[in-house]
Amino acid sequence: NGSTVESLDYEVVENFAYREEQAKRGKLYMGYVVLVKWFLALLIGIGTGLAAVFINLSVENFAGWKFSLTFQIIQKSYFAGFLVYILINLVLVLSSVYIITCFAPAASGSGIPEIKGYLNGIDTHGILLFRTLIGKIFGSIGSVGGGLALGKEGPLVHIGACIASLLGQGGSTKYHLRSRWLQVFSSERDRRDLVTCGCAAGVAAAFRAPVGGVLFALEEVTSWWRSQLMWRVFFTSAIVAVVVRTAMGWCKDGNCGHFGAGGFIIWDISGGQEDYSFEELLPMAFIGVIGGLLGALFNQLTLYMTHWRRNYLHKKGIRVKIIEACLISVITSAISFGLPLFRRCTPCPEAEANSGIECPQAPGMFGNYVNFYCQNNKEYNDLATIFFNTQDDAIRNLFSAKTAHEFSAQGLLTFLVMFYTLAVVTFGTAVPAGQFVPGIMIGSTYGRLVGMFVVSFYKKLNIEEGTYALLGAASFLGGSMRMTVSLCVIMVEITNNLKLLPLIMLVLLISKAVGDAFNEGLYEEQARLRAIPLLESRPKYQMRYMTAKEACGSQNVVYFPRVVKVSDIVSILRSNDHNGFPVVDHSRSGETLVIGLILRSHLLVLLQSKVDFQHSPLPCDSRGDLLPIRHNLSEFVKPVSSKGISLRDIHFTPDDLEMYIDLAPFLNPSPYVVPEDMSLTKVYNLFRQLGLRHLLVVPRPARVIGMITRKDLILED
Amino acid sequence: NGSTVESLDYEVVENFAYREEQAKRGKLYMGYVVLVKWFLALLIGIGTGLAAVFINLSVENFAGWKFSLTFQIIQKSYFAGFLVYILINLVLVLSSVYIITCFAPAASGSGIPEIKGYLNGIDTHGILLFRTLIGKIFGSIGSVGGGLALGKEGPLVHIGACIASLLGQGGSTKYHLRSRWLQVFSSERDRRDLVTCGCAAGVAAAFRAPVGGVLFALEEVTSWWRSQLMWRVFFTSAIVAVVVRTAMGWCKDGNCGHFGAGGFIIWDISGGQEDYSFEELLPMAFIGVIGGLLGALFNQLTLYMTHWRRNYLHKKGIRVKIIEACLISVITSAISFGLPLFRRCTPCPEAEANSGIECPQAPGMFGNYVNFYCQNNKEYNDLATIFFNTQDDAIRNLFSAKTAHEFSAQGLLTFLVMFYTLAVVTFGTAVPAGQFVPGIMIGSTYGRLVGMFVVSFYKKLNIEEGTYALLGAASFLGGSMRMTVSLCVIMVEITNNLKLLPLIMLVLLISKAVGDAFNEGLYEEQARLRAIPLLESRPKYQMRYMTAKEACGSQNVVYFPRVVKVSDIVSILRSNDHNGFPVVDHSRSGETLVIGLILRSHLLVLLQSKVDFQHSPLPCDSRGDLLPIRHNLSEFVKPVSSKGISLRDIHFTPDDLEMYIDLAPFLNPSPYVVPEDMSLTKVYNLFRQLGLRHLLVVPRPARVIGMITRKDLILED
Ligand SMILES: Nc1ncnc2c1ncn2[C@@H]1O[C@H](COP(=O)(O)OP(=O)(O)OP(=O)(O)O)[C@@H](O)[C@H]1O
Ligand SMILES: Nc1ncnc2c1ncn2[C@@H]1O[C@H](COP(=O)(O)OP(=O)(O)OP(=O)(O)O)[C@@H](O)[C@H]1O
Ligand SMILES: [Mg+2]
Ligand SMILES: [Mg+2]
Repeated sequence: NGSTVESLDYEVVENFAYREEQAKRGKLYMGYVVLVKWFLALLIGIGTGLAAVFINLSVENFAGWKFSLTFQIIQKSYFAGFLVYILINLVLVLSSVYIITCFAPAASGSGIPEIKGYLNGIDTHGILLFRTLIGKIFGSIGSVGGGLALGKEGPLVHIGACIASLLGQGGSTKYHLRSRWLQVFSSERDRRDLVTCGCAAGVAAAFRAPVGGVLFALEEVTSWWRSQLMWRVFFTSAIVAVVVRTAMGWCKDGNCGHFGAGGFIIWDISGGQEDYSFEELLPMAFIGVIGGLLGALFNQLTLYMTHWRRNYLHKKGIRVKIIEACLISVITSAISFGLPLFRRCTPCPEAEANSGIECPQAPGMFGNYVNFYCQNNKEYNDLATIFFNTQDDAIRNLFSAKTAHEFSAQGLLTFLVMFYTLAVVTFGTAVPAGQFVPGIMIGSTYGRLVGMFVVSFYKKLNIEEGTYALLGAASFLGGSMRMTVSLCVIMVEITNNLKLLPLIMLVLLISKAVGDAFNEGLYEEQARLRAIPLLESRPKYQMRYMTAKEACGSQNVVYFPRVVKVSDIVSILRSNDHNGFPVVDHSRSGETLVIGLILRSHLLVLLQSKVDFQHSPLPCDSRGDLLPIRHNLSEFVKPVSSKGISLRDIHFTPDDLEMYIDLAPFLNPSPYVVPEDMSLTKVYNLFRQLGLRHLLVVPRPARVIGMITRKDLILED
Repeated sequence: NGSTVESLDYEVVENFAYREEQAKRGKLYMGYVVLVKWFLALLIGIGTGLAAVFINLSVENFAGWKFSLTFQIIQKSYFAGFLVYILINLVLVLSSVYIITCFAPAASGSGIPEIKGYLNGIDTHGILLFRTLIGKIFGSIGSVGGGLALGKEGPLVHIGACIASLLGQGGSTKYHLRSRWLQVFSSERDRRDLVTCGCAAGVAAAFRAPVGGVLFALEEVTSWWRSQLMWRVFFTSAIVAVVVRTAMGWCKDGNCGHFGAGGFIIWDISGGQEDYSFEELLPMAFIGVIGGLLGALFNQLTLYMTHWRRNYLHKKGIRVKIIEACLISVITSAISFGLPLFRRCTPCPEAEANSGIECPQAPGMFGNYVNFYCQNNKEYNDLATIFFNTQDDAIRNLFSAKTAHEFSAQGLLTFLVMFYTLAVVTFGTAVPAGQFVPGIMIGSTYGRLVGMFVVSFYKKLNIEEGTYALLGAASFLGGSMRMTVSLCVIMVEITNNLKLLPLIMLVLLISKAVGDAFNEGLYEEQARLRAIPLLESRPKYQMRYMTAKEACGSQNVVYFPRVVKVSDIVSILRSNDHNGFPVVDHSRSGETLVIGLILRSHLLVLLQSKVDFQHSPLPCDSRGDLLPIRHNLSEFVKPVSSKGISLRDIHFTPDDLEMYIDLAPFLNPSPYVVPEDMSLTKVYNLFRQLGLRHLLVVPRPARVIGMITRKDLILED
């Protein structure tokens, strides 16, 4: 059911209070608003950057400590090491799932479908609360540090959005930190702009990709994008980049424990292949096809899993969720520790002079060529190198150039199957979980597999398996998430190499096309499952044969007269759950006239405050009074991510119910209208481009008062 | 006057012919359309890429040949060299200005204001014709090869747009190459999408910046941007990158004469400073302020110059234009050759082992440390290094790292003043001219000046003057063009260095803010001068106090009845020059009803073809006939960049004038409407976001037939 979601409105309600407030404000005030907006953008950048640094630092330290301890113990006993490894992972995952289930249920999963929904115009309750933020931060640390097959990038996007929303309202609603100087941000429109900034900041922080962040936000919110917003979003992303970079510089001096070793995603492949010959395009296209197929399969499997979890497993209560997560943690640990034990070790390759790659690496350190369960000191275990390692390092190893023949086909295949299964199973457990890094792991594994065959087939020198691994990663993400430009730019930014852009585009194009043949993107599927009705950017094909009137069906429009009895309001509001009602007035000559649209939330504010109740059923201006200005604009603002006032909380005396309210000063006097036989395609474009919530379908007009063309909108100063 | 401009319509006219054609088409046809769209995107990419390669190749070869010849001659006589240098430049510029004035007048200038206008919704006649394309290509070669203070990047954007538009209509309209399979692109909407692709391709080709190209197109057309378009635009840009790269690879083998030496902009600064300390931020901010001031001054001066040229100088005829351009060419040559003669030469610095920089460079080759008019063989002339050189190499020298103290403050200052003046004077002559490269030259000069002071002030080792030059370039472009994100990304892509992104942003932010305090951006100012009424993305402040009705003023709406006499049509069309007319019908009960909007261009097609004339003044459906389908949709398409049919060309017999036409099948049955008292801000948003041309202002509706919310727009398949 759609009862937990509610639409947002990008429109400004130009009611009387709004116009009063506008009139009071001068140019100076506008400058002040701009200043505050930029200041908030700065704060969002700093906040998100710091949150990202904190998460990375914690994860790296937990993971580093875990692996060094395990390596120490397995010098003596592999079994004891195994137990310790499982136990540490279990504790971390347990803490994460405990935080999520008992404290911040809205923080589970990646959060991107919900944020996507928010930017598309749907408010899911609870996603932007302070407790969600906290849960997300600490939950991510536990789940990623605990070695589950999930990433911390998706959650960071959610974290960025939370930070933005909280800053915009001056802190948590519950603890009433709302300060006066923030009252300028009173509309849902401003809040959505802030969340857009936060979302971009999250991507920028997750991947250290400021441009990618902007484009990500852009691809999601293209409909009401404005140039000024673009610049502000970009500013926020750049601030994030600066913060993260400063923190990393500070960490390089050894202030942050294990952090220096891994952490922020940058898989520099600058030493690798930069050129490509035309015959390589075929295997690359093949990678694209695999990516599309595996990605679509991933979406489908996770959809079934989530469906089953929501409707069956998770209904059984919190305890089941906790047990489930712990079970998955134990299985993951067992597989990642156990499987490499069955691999035969490989002798180290001849060390090149200045490649900087040690074989085997020093025990307990991150890096290539892990020596694990090997007889000889000069050997390494190729499966352990990717499986018994942090994900960041595994990816770095898969991407690495100049390490041809490091992995065996058998090892990569084993890893691919196991990790794919783990990723599918883990998806949807009650922990914060991103799909970006697992996707890169899966993709780069089969990419490297293809690369191995290409290397041995073409027998050329300058072909690098690592480049194919990168393309594989891009193809899987393209096949699963179906993002285009932003994904492309993110891949370029995390590999810090502009030269591979055309190749990445090629595989993305193919994998997206292949994936689209089967199902929708991961986030869209998940959003649909969560009953978040996303409006796509393009109207459906059959809409061109429908009219606006047909879309409304045989509705009986619920409307209010201009002056309405309180008891009527209450009964009408009770009788349905619409959120917007047209207001109709009768002129002297008895004709009706639609004078505007009133929102349920505004009606509830009026009912609660009661100051506008009047005894007479006449409109206030006809009684010679001025229109009342008893309300501040900010009173009408609905608190973020919550239901707002409920009718049940308002108590009415019998006298109250006999009073009247004149709605004229509070309604939106000019909602957008469409004539009844406009084709639904055009209606859709209007609705979606302007970010509307309600659109009135009206009869054809009887006459035209004027024509507006471009010339009429160019005002001379 | 605005008589040469006409608005474009992003709306689809859903008239009867359109709906007929839609109904005939199945899903297969839709697939075909998509295929053709992508194929066209591919062609646009290839075409623009090849055009860019051709221009670069020619310019490089002309310039290379010019400089080697001059260097050869000055071994014997400086005076003879001077004459030859002037003469070659003169011939090149003369050919350029001749092509422009006599063959393709629409190709003068950068073309970006016009393209910006086109994407904003205004069609300037002649900008997208075949002859404009040819003129632009060959004109650019002449003007840039001739050493004027202008660049070839702006023209490339225009070239990309022309190619896109011509491909979209299957060739030149004049030579009727229009092929059947392109008839799918019949609306202005499709054409505008194509031009968007072409515009991005142009930027991508000019700067080898695919992402920058996408963002450039995006910043200009944010209003009707759609995700699918984004992906297509990106694809086109990437194709351009591939084409250019392939061509350059081919040229590296020595197939293209001088081309290997310079050519496509990539000023790699990867060897330079990558880090910055906090005390450097102050001089960097200072650069931003200078950039804002100088940029705003540049805009203002060029505005005066262009104003004067348009209203006074260029009115005197073609000959004046040609003489003017030649004069400027001679002056430019004289200054760039003469001024370095007055400089004292500097001894070469100690060569570092593997810096790869020779001092002095071999004569006649491009590069750093030009030996010009020096006594000693081991000396160089710092002014000649930037002035007596191609602009690409001059910029490369200004950006170069590890060459501290190469330039003297005096030399740089001289160059700054002279070049700034030249750039201002050259702007607006009748040759194709971009402002990007001159802007970079100016900016990097003062940037390097500031850098010199920083180096000598802070006395740290890792500060590079080249980095400051880059920041200076960004600041000047920001202060003059006021682009934001796209400029930033372009700067990053042409320097191939992601690490300086935050710094570039900082200076851009400052210089844009400073510049905005004085005037509008270069392109906006120029567009205003050319009477191109750009709609900004944000409504003006005072619009919130106006209503739609007030914007229309006291218009007397010119409308048509449904069935109208031909003579009436003719007289109404003659009496005004509106392009859209509401059509009003009378119902049986005598009430009027607005049934749609008819465009002047459609009326003219009807009048010309005459097949729809009827004798009876009754609507056709009331006579029991079916609606006529005598027209193909493509007949209604206005040819690109031309006035279309004129009323004067149609001949009427007296019988014709007594006939009637039923307009119902041809009108747009559902134009967008707004109620009369909607605030102009909202009207503006609607108009601009949907890319409209006409908007009907109507009375408030009497009743509401239905409400459309998000739920009604989510159709289940
Ligand atoms: N005032 C109204 N009178 C009659 N039908 C309405 C009214 N408002 C909405 N509807 C219809 O009711 C159905 C459910 O919409 P719903 O009531 O959930 O809209 P809403 O709550 O106002 O907006 P949203 O749910 O998007 O926040 C839709 O088909 C819509 O067209
Ligand atoms: N049919 C009409 N009747 C009366 N006034 C009109 C009509 N159409 C446009 N106008 C008004 O005439 C003025 C000039 O507009 P103009 O006639 O140039 O519009 P247009 O030619 O239809 O559109 P554009 O010039 O943008 O292509 C504007 O103020 C506009 O509101
Ligand atoms: Mg609802
Ligand atoms: Mg006009």
